[in-house]
Amino acid sequence: MAKSLVVFAALALIFIVRVHGADPELVSDFSIPDGTDESKLDGVFFTYTGLRGGAPASTSGFGRKAVSVSNFPALDGMGVSMELLEFQPASVNVPHTHPRGAEILFVVDGALTVGSTDSNGKLYKNVLQKGDVFVFPKGLPHYQANFDKTNKAVAVSTFASSNAGTVSLPKNLFGSNIPDEVLTKAFKISADTLQQLKTNNQS
Amino acid sequence: MAKSLVVFAALALIFIVRVHGADPELVSDFSIPDGTDESKLDGVFFTYTGLRGGAPASTSGFGRKAVSVSNFPALDGMGVSMELLEFQPASVNVPHTHPRGAEILFVVDGALTVGSTDSNGKLYKNVLQKGDVFVFPKGLPHYQANFDKTNKAVAVSTFASSNAGTVSLPKNLFGSNIPDEVLTKAFKISADTLQQLKTNNQS
Amino acid sequence: MAKSLVVFAALALIFIVRVHGADPELVSDFSIPDGTDESKLDGVFFTYTGLRGGAPASTSGFGRKAVSVSNFPALDGMGVSMELLEFQPASVNVPHTHPRGAEILFVVDGALTVGSTDSNGKLYKNVLQKGDVFVFPKGLPHYQANFDKTNKAVAVSTFASSNAGTVSLPKNLFGSNIPDEVLTKAFKISADTLQQLKTNNQS
Amino acid sequence: MAKSLVVFAALALIFIVRVHGADPELVSDFSIPDGTDESKLDGVFFTYTGLRGGAPASTSGFGRKAVSVSNFPALDGMGVSMELLEFQPASVNVPHTHPRGAEILFVVDGALTVGSTDSNGKLYKNVLQKGDVFVFPKGLPHYQANFDKTNKAVAVSTFASSNAGTVSLPKNLFGSNIPDEVLTKAFKISADTLQQLKTNNQS
Amino acid sequence: MAKSLVVFAALALIFIVRVHGADPELVSDFSIPDGTDESKLDGVFFTYTGLRGGAPASTSGFGRKAVSVSNFPALDGMGVSMELLEFQPASVNVPHTHPRGAEILFVVDGALTVGSTDSNGKLYKNVLQKGDVFVFPKGLPHYQANFDKTNKAVAVSTFASSNAGTVSLPKNLFGSNIPDEVLTKAFKISADTLQQLKTNNQS
Amino acid sequence: MAKSLVVFAALALIFIVRVHGADPELVSDFSIPDGTDESKLDGVFFTYTGLRGGAPASTSGFGRKAVSVSNFPALDGMGVSMELLEFQPASVNVPHTHPRGAEILFVVDGALTVGSTDSNGKLYKNVLQKGDVFVFPKGLPHYQANFDKTNKAVAVSTFASSNAGTVSLPKNLFGSNIPDEVLTKAFKISADTLQQLKTNNQS
Repeated sequence: MAKSLVVFAALALIFIVRVHGADPELVSDFSIPDGTDESKLDGVFFTYTGLRGGAPASTSGFGRKAVSVSNFPALDGMGVSMELLEFQPASVNVPHTHPRGAEILFVVDGALTVGSTDSNGKLYKNVLQKGDVFVFPKGLPHYQANFDKTNKAVAVSTFASSNAGTVSLPKNLFGSNIPDEVLTKAFKISADTLQQLKTNNQS
Repeated sequence: MAKSLVVFAALALIFIVRVHGADPELVSDFSIPDGTDESKLDGVFFTYTGLRGGAPASTSGFGRKAVSVSNFPALDGMGVSMELLEFQPASVNVPHTHPRGAEILFVVDGALTVGSTDSNGKLYKNVLQKGDVFVFPKGLPHYQANFDKTNKAVAVSTFASSNAGTVSLPKNLFGSNIPDEVLTKAFKISADTLQQLKTNNQS
Repeated sequence: MAKSLVVFAALALIFIVRVHGADPELVSDFSIPDGTDESKLDGVFFTYTGLRGGAPASTSGFGRKAVSVSNFPALDGMGVSMELLEFQPASVNVPHTHPRGAEILFVVDGALTVGSTDSNGKLYKNVLQKGDVFVFPKGLPHYQANFDKTNKAVAVSTFASSNAGTVSLPKNLFGSNIPDEVLTKAFKISADTLQQLKTNNQS
Repeated sequence: MAKSLVVFAALALIFIVRVHGADPELVSDFSIPDGTDESKLDGVFFTYTGLRGGAPASTSGFGRKAVSVSNFPALDGMGVSMELLEFQPASVNVPHTHPRGAEILFVVDGALTVGSTDSNGKLYKNVLQKGDVFVFPKGLPHYQANFDKTNKAVAVSTFASSNAGTVSLPKNLFGSNIPDEVLTKAFKISADTLQQLKTNNQS
Repeated sequence: MAKSLVVFAALALIFIVRVHGADPELVSDFSIPDGTDESKLDGVFFTYTGLRGGAPASTSGFGRKAVSVSNFPALDGMGVSMELLEFQPASVNVPHTHPRGAEILFVVDGALTVGSTDSNGKLYKNVLQKGDVFVFPKGLPHYQANFDKTNKAVAVSTFASSNAGTVSLPKNLFGSNIPDEVLTKAFKISADTLQQLKTNNQS
Repeated sequence: MAKSLVVFAALALIFIVRVHGADPELVSDFSIPDGTDESKLDGVFFTYTGLRGGAPASTSGFGRKAVSVSNFPALDGMGVSMELLEFQPASVNVPHTHPRGAEILFVVDGALTVGSTDSNGKLYKNVLQKGDVFVFPKGLPHYQANFDKTNKAVAVSTFASSNAGTVSLPKNLFGSNIPDEVLTKAFKISADTLQQLKTNNQS
């Protein structure tokens, strides 16, 4: 019995790490993962090197690499996270939302067409040059696109949460098993059109 | 000149009311609109009677009536707002998000099929009876539907913000002038299918 | 010794669940209890069915049933909780406060007389009909009463915290062993009157 | 007409000062009242001298003097306020709550008997000496008393809000016109006992 | 008299804009400056183009250009701001703190030596390459330096506040008229050494 | 194996206590340390007696004694902490910052010269008498000094965080191994002067 309790305790600890990850005001200088030997902590803990290789493109030509508290624990409680965005020519970061934080984007290279909608369904769009900054308010649907046919575009975005989350709207709407009756009524489409949307937006 | 300054001041005041509406910790018992005579304040200020008439259905068969700081100023700083939802038989509250607060729904009458997706695109759904409670996390796409062919359903929802906002995804995606190139690539659809979606989701 | 450590660990885990329950900004879509198998999570987790049976009345004729993070873990971090209130004819929800959140009340059935005081001791009261909404600011003493002699009243309240707490003032003042000298001086009453108040407000 | 607009504008401004006083995260080093000439601002702005004269006792023998954003504007957004408490021999600070912040009390002189209840109605009490510290959680009913028959006691309390508020429970319950039917039922007392409580706890 | 009231009102409005700038949870999709015609708002409002010219170096060889709610109003309530940092060879961003938010830095070009201390006075340092990310916790003293003798370095930093503030420690300590007696005792230096530090750190 | 798991679990628990210490809104009346038997909890838990002996002076003549969540667990989630400050004649509390909360100081005895700088490097200073209150905004460098040659001064400070932190600037700048090249450039001093500063400000 002692053994099963031990296993239970160990399992529970694993989940605690996941659950306690919130972004409140810290009451320590920073937060370290359970079990870390604080005396050996140095600047490496505050450094993330995983963006050195860039953000490799998916088949769509768009690539993202996220730096959040999930892969960079030093962000716990810091209220910020980051993402590197690389756009091959004529590629698109599909409409999405970040449920837990605004996004501030800086164009490192190339040009980007960006847009955000608001809760009235109004679109705010612009074409950004290298060096431009754009802010996407928390929770509102938005997109970025590189309409240039020959040049790449690169941006770095920061979010006002250590794990702002990204909700892909094509996938969440048409790749998530929402009942057909809901989707045909919601988007005012035929069952055939819906089937096409569902087939193309799995995963 | 004095007059134009006066007009400017009056105009500015109107905007201040709009802008300062945030949901921080209050440092007073409650917040009253600019110009209110506090000595005449009574329980009427804390009461909203606009739901007595229910939530009349739109042509789709679904009706909503929101109670937020916009039409019920006593909610300023309270961190809550409310919505009455009425579903005619076979009607749907289309997939949407609330960018600024979780939603807790209570079924007053009838039965509701509800679902929320998460940031991985996984769907969590259930069928609710009268008296059931469901919570939709902040910023995640979700829907409610009354699949019953003969009975109405009624629910009352509360949000964890005095103005949580509602983003209709059909309207924001296909009724907001997002460039066609973005939408065809994002949803992997033909220009024709997009045109059909855009035509049907204006308004 | 290993065994006692195990017991200690298990006990400690029980308390951790209780202690880490705060309502900060989440940095995940939602929060799940320690040990939950996330892959099996479905819509049932976000559903609470315990209000189907209503809120049975106590001997006073008033019944409450609370839905907080304590009995509905999906509320963790959502910033909302709920309560079903049922008033038999001529029954009263005694003056109380919620130390951690404002309350927004919706009258489901019947009529309710409600009132809230502020920190100056001023009373704001009103009589609510079915469909009316009333907001009680955080931490202020308030009550609800059904003065009707024949009809029940039912309300559903939501709080701006996943566990707003309820402090019954009769019980906390006269049923909690506050020294007699404090109470007689505070309420300017005789020792006899205090004794009567204390006797009647135990429980 | 211009004139009435002017008067309206001026009146509105007065209320704005009151209304915008919330305790969010500042995005400036500090906050100054409308119309302040920032170039003339010096250390006097951050200083409050109104406690030099102590906290004169009321007829009950207890005296309080509050330092909040209301009389010390530099506290705006600082998330703290203060109170000086002076207890003549055998005097009591009646049971009360602070709806918007915890209280940390430091005994400057004498001895104090203090107690706080929780939302279960359990009492946590202690006797404090000079130099002791006690913390009262946000929104919970508590009291302090100097039971010494000959010596004064002095304490200084700080609150976790620039205006935590103080709700006197005797006054709010029995001096605020809550309907008799509510109070007799709530406290299980006769109309006569209630009348006595009401008479003695006006203002 | 009407006129002076008008002038007072106009002046007051100017200050209100400054004062209400806090970073609470928004209860609108975004916040617009007083007097903005919302119907004409478009994507330009959410765009900042002032970084196109880079961050020109001061005489020290280091240049910074800040993007905060002060020069980019769309950031109001977004909880983020940004800074472009350009380091000529062998230049230093002097030790400083940001009192209102953590900083996440991304190296756009070159290499940077960075370090942060904690409240125990321990230093956490590292050498960053192009593409690396480093997080500086809120309020802790830190610096960045380009030790390379021939190559520039460029970084972009984001802060977890729409106006995190920057406190230059050399200037605040030795260029701000803190009394000599405080500084000689605090830094354990002679009056002569202090005089040298004060002379060199005016600005 | 069971044993090593037990040891791991016990170790992990130790770290959890440290890590989960944030200052969010509580969703319980208060927070208790892991493993506490709640039924035995009484007023002693909310009491800190460690200031009875005052704040013994260091060799510099200044003494501080902090009361934070580290040594007084009842402060967890309360958003306040405290410090007793004792100044021997002609002693100084060196320039420092509190990265996580504003400070409100009350002069218990004697007179204090205090000053705070802002993010522009401007100094706000004043001389405080017994009974005066001064507020130091969050994260800004400040100092206190007793310039009196014969009398002690005593103050009690409260912070708007259960663990606001204290960053000693002399120690963090010159006692923390920041590279010499950074410090000579930052403070515009010779290597010799730096050496003197470093030697005198170790720990």
